[in-house]
Amino acid sequence: MPTIVVEVMPKAELLDPQGKAVAGALGRLGKSQFTGVRVGKRFEITIDGPADAAALADIAQLADTVLSNSVIEDVVGIHVVGTAEAVN
Amino acid sequence: MPTIVVEVMPKAELLDPQGKAVAGALGRLGKSQFTGVRVGKRFEITIDGPADAAALADIAQLADTVLSNSVIEDVVGIHVVGTAEAVN
Repeated sequence: MPTIVVEVMPKAELLDPQGKAVAGALGRLGKSQFTGVRVGKRFEITIDGPADAAALADIAQLADTVLSNSVIEDVVGIHVVGTAEAVN
Repeated sequence: MPTIVVEVMPKAELLDPQGKAVAGALGRLGKSQFTGVRVGKRFEITIDGPADAAALADIAQLADTVLSNSVIEDVVGIHVVGTAEAVN
């Protein structure tokens, strides 16, 4: 079954406290060349059926309404990844 | 400045309660063709310097030790995405 990946990130203009915490941790580990970290979400959605245009349109609509909070987050990517990481 | 994306997902053989909750919500919305959802994390890390092999090796090591919990999560992808979504 095909899998669709939806990527959601906090909006660039908003503070991301979780990312700040990770960036601070990297700095304390001596990795100060990594100046910024932002933490978002990655959904892997398995479809029972083909990953056709209709399924992608459905996912795009769900990504904006269910999977992300459009006040603070942007959907930055939606793509199909075959059967990677399917149940073996 | 280049940005490196690190993708972390819960291990396939473990239960992902957050993904189960999303899958349930999609089912209640009538989108029962989406049979499985897993929710992972997506880190965008900005580097002050080139995204060369040394930086990627550093990130790969940090991804395994700091950005993911190897008991329950797998690092599924590390890639460079130019200056996308940098501060405008």
